[in-house]
Amino acid sequence: MTPEEFRRHGRQVVDWIADYLAGIESHPVMSQVKPGEIRRALPSAPPERGEPFESVLSDLERLLLPGITHWQHPGFFAYFPSNASGPAILGDLLSSGLGVQGMLWVTSPACTELETVVVDWLAELLGLPGHFRTDAAGGGVIQDSASSACLVALLAALHRAGDGRVTEEGITRRYALYVSSQTHSSLERAARIAGLGAAGVRLVDVDPRTLAMDPAHLRTLLDRDRADGIVPAMVCATVGTTSTTAVDPVPEIGAVCRERGVWLHVDAAYAGVATVCPELRWLNDGVAEYADSYATNPHKWLLTNFDCGVLWTADRGPLLAALSSLPEYLRNAATSAGSVIDYRDWQVPLGRRFRALKLWSVIRWYGAEGLRAHIRQGVGLAQELAGWIAADPGFEPHEPHPLGLVCFRPRWPGLDAREADRATMRLLELLNASGSMYLTHTRIGDRAVLRMAIGGAATERRHVEQAWERIRTEHAALSRTLPGH
Amino acid sequence: MTPEEFRRHGRQVVDWIADYLAGIESHPVMSQVKPGEIRRALPSAPPERGEPFESVLSDLERLLLPGITHWQHPGFFAYFPSNASGPAILGDLLSSGLGVQGMLWVTSPACTELETVVVDWLAELLGLPGHFRTDAAGGGVIQDSASSACLVALLAALHRAGDGRVTEEGITRRYALYVSSQTHSSLERAARIAGLGAAGVRLVDVDPRTLAMDPAHLRTLLDRDRADGIVPAMVCATVGTTSTTAVDPVPEIGAVCRERGVWLHVDAAYAGVATVCPELRWLNDGVAEYADSYATNPHKWLLTNFDCGVLWTADRGPLLAALSSLPEYLRNAATSAGSVIDYRDWQVPLGRRFRALKLWSVIRWYGAEGLRAHIRQGVGLAQELAGWIAADPGFEPHEPHPLGLVCFRPRWPGLDAREADRATMRLLELLNASGSMYLTHTRIGDRAVLRMAIGGAATERRHVEQAWERIRTEHAALSRTLPGH
Repeated sequence: MTPEEFRRHGRQVVDWIADYLAGIESHPVMSQVKPGEIRRALPSAPPERGEPFESVLSDLERLLLPGITHWQHPGFFAYFPSNASGPAILGDLLSSGLGVQGMLWVTSPACTELETVVVDWLAELLGLPGHFRTDAAGGGVIQDSASSACLVALLAALHRAGDGRVTEEGITRRYALYVSSQTHSSLERAARIAGLGAAGVRLVDVDPRTLAMDPAHLRTLLDRDRADGIVPAMVCATVGTTSTTAVDPVPEIGAVCRERGVWLHVDAAYAGVATVCPELRWLNDGVAEYADSYATNPHKWLLTNFDCGVLWTADRGPLLAALSSLPEYLRNAATSAGSVIDYRDWQVPLGRRFRALKLWSVIRWYGAEGLRAHIRQGVGLAQELAGWIAADPGFEPHEPHPLGLVCFRPRWPGLDAREADRATMRLLELLNASGSMYLTHTRIGDRAVLRMAIGGAATERRHVEQAWERIRTEHAALSRTLPGH
Repeated sequence: MTPEEFRRHGRQVVDWIADYLAGIESHPVMSQVKPGEIRRALPSAPPERGEPFESVLSDLERLLLPGITHWQHPGFFAYFPSNASGPAILGDLLSSGLGVQGMLWVTSPACTELETVVVDWLAELLGLPGHFRTDAAGGGVIQDSASSACLVALLAALHRAGDGRVTEEGITRRYALYVSSQTHSSLERAARIAGLGAAGVRLVDVDPRTLAMDPAHLRTLLDRDRADGIVPAMVCATVGTTSTTAVDPVPEIGAVCRERGVWLHVDAAYAGVATVCPELRWLNDGVAEYADSYATNPHKWLLTNFDCGVLWTADRGPLLAALSSLPEYLRNAATSAGSVIDYRDWQVPLGRRFRALKLWSVIRWYGAEGLRAHIRQGVGLAQELAGWIAADPGFEPHEPHPLGLVCFRPRWPGLDAREADRATMRLLELLNASGSMYLTHTRIGDRAVLRMAIGGAATERRHVEQAWERIRTEHAALSRTLPGH
């Protein structure tokens, strides 16, 4: 494709996206296709001859769009938001257009140095400690996701816990990772990937009401393992769990880790970016004092399209020791002089895209005040929704709900717990099939509850109101069909 | 940013990229900035207020561009090519614009099903075996890189080698990974990440001339480890090594693996996509018969911008067993019914971008014949260059060079090996500082050689001719300054 063809088709794509975003409410939020439907609509063999670009666009519209679940739809309340904003999309487009690969400083110095600048900017915006900055002992790096960030943190923690032996000799003794039942599943996966196995994961008790990790039980487990000759490698505290946005008590957990010399990773994948608002800065309590590593995802709630997670560490030494390698074909003067950062030593893959461009573009377009306004919009709407739920005798909200997620249980008078859970799941299906919203569920105290996560860039008050109105209506209608009514 | 603002700024960005690509030869290929220069030019603090998008573009132009090494420049011969083509950039833009996250089938069915279709298409284009297809026992998946692909393959191999115990119990006995000195460094990193440590990596001898792995030595090492109670987990054979594009004898290595029951991973990160040409199909020899997993990167030489690596497996069972997990908030009817693919179980991270769109867009725009023409252009120019080198008494080419990479050693009469290597490295510096080309080096038989990798989408015969002319000129000029001349 020549530059002039690119110019022409690029405009078509930009227009297509602008039209798509402007008209996104005309689509059902959640795709209603059956398994295999999209696949069967596509040719089973690749074309021998090239086709015009217009065919790609028309097939996208005609064949693929019915199979798209619209994450940018204002009625998308499932999972956490995955904001794609204009400046992020365009920053990403610039990255694709430049087509540079920033594995080493020397392979495109601006790719590395802009990343250093924007992760330092973000640390400042979120009020993270000065030692996380790249000009101190620590440093930040963009990862594809919080899953990869926690794996990298675990590798650094294992390096430190084993005095370098894990990197050299592998897992030759037993190490353990400490999480709670509410910790993201990627931590257990990281333990499996790193050779600890599922058996190397300890589940620390949680407070049954707040679902926050119990520091006293953590201490008990650490001491028991030490007594058994098992080396505690890392504790993961979560600030804003995926299930309910529970906040683990980082200061207390951190104190236990410090006493016992164990690496503390703070997973703030969703909630971390909210600390751009001073009134939510309490979410960082204990991080400056105790966290060895910390991760949050601008690609969730900070208007930066996937993938863009940021991992910071208080000391980059163990991370680099765990992941560095330097084959001959990557040797170069700048690396040898030690005067530059080579981010490929900070991550699992070798190659890397110029992802800093999109985060830079987002921060510049919105500014700190625009980012705060976006977070406040999501939190404000969620608090309003929680108020409506609490005021309605048909529903019971889960407390607390300090951020953009509200979990709530529909009441089904006359049904036992199992029947009620089945009715809740049936209500969820009906709501998602309506096309006007997409919610998910979780379990709290072994009861099914609905999760409604607010924070989409396009979500306004009217969308939350409409969703709530429909939830109430469908709940009432379903209640009338149930036995005992 | 509203849809209308996006439309306006999107056109600016498309125009900027079109102009950049049209004028790319006006830039020095390799950035000439010093460490810290870009970082110091950028504000140390983020803006409080939002700024116009034009500021992002003008700062990109003014502050960042001097720090960019232009991977799409026709004089970029360093590393392997990292092709970004128009249809790939636009497919990626559509992915950013849709902003869907395809971790599960249900989170956007088209994202999963298009991926299945395009990886099956690619398997067909490359002549890979039918059992790699998703409708058979195997299946393909897009990964961010061959590094992650080999890690995933190793996890599957460990799962199989340990009868599932690695996933459950972790590394509780010694496992080994078999590579050669020419294998990509990501394999050693994968072993370290997976808990085998550097000590779990065995270096199989290579043929000193072809640098291909020696199957007889592999057999010896496997048997020695078995006798020592060490479990061979995986052998990695490389088709087209990074250093010199050496091709390991996959049929012979595969036969050894089959006899000994060891997982064979074939790393064809660079060379695999070249088998779109029937005359290069021999690169697949042994893959159909023996490979348990196989990886190649369309983001290198197949016109698809980073990141887009594809991993296939002959049996997806061990891979899914090693990586699956299902927390409550990800449960859904389609997954429970087992009727769909959830690609998050096929990779390290949980979240995933809609990367299939760009590969789909590339295959449709170029068609099989366009892709073949692109590969043939690179191979053809490399063979011409190798001919010029062989005909010049000042240089010595490394044989063989079946693909787009030519390694060659400048001759420095009168210098001993160490002095000659220093002169070679000095020549490399001079060439890269010229701004007209970017080469790298490697070591063969402990001698420094230059690597010139041809295959950029914009590289024409005249660029290779000009580069060769300058190499000869600079070599002659440098020779004249050396002692003994």
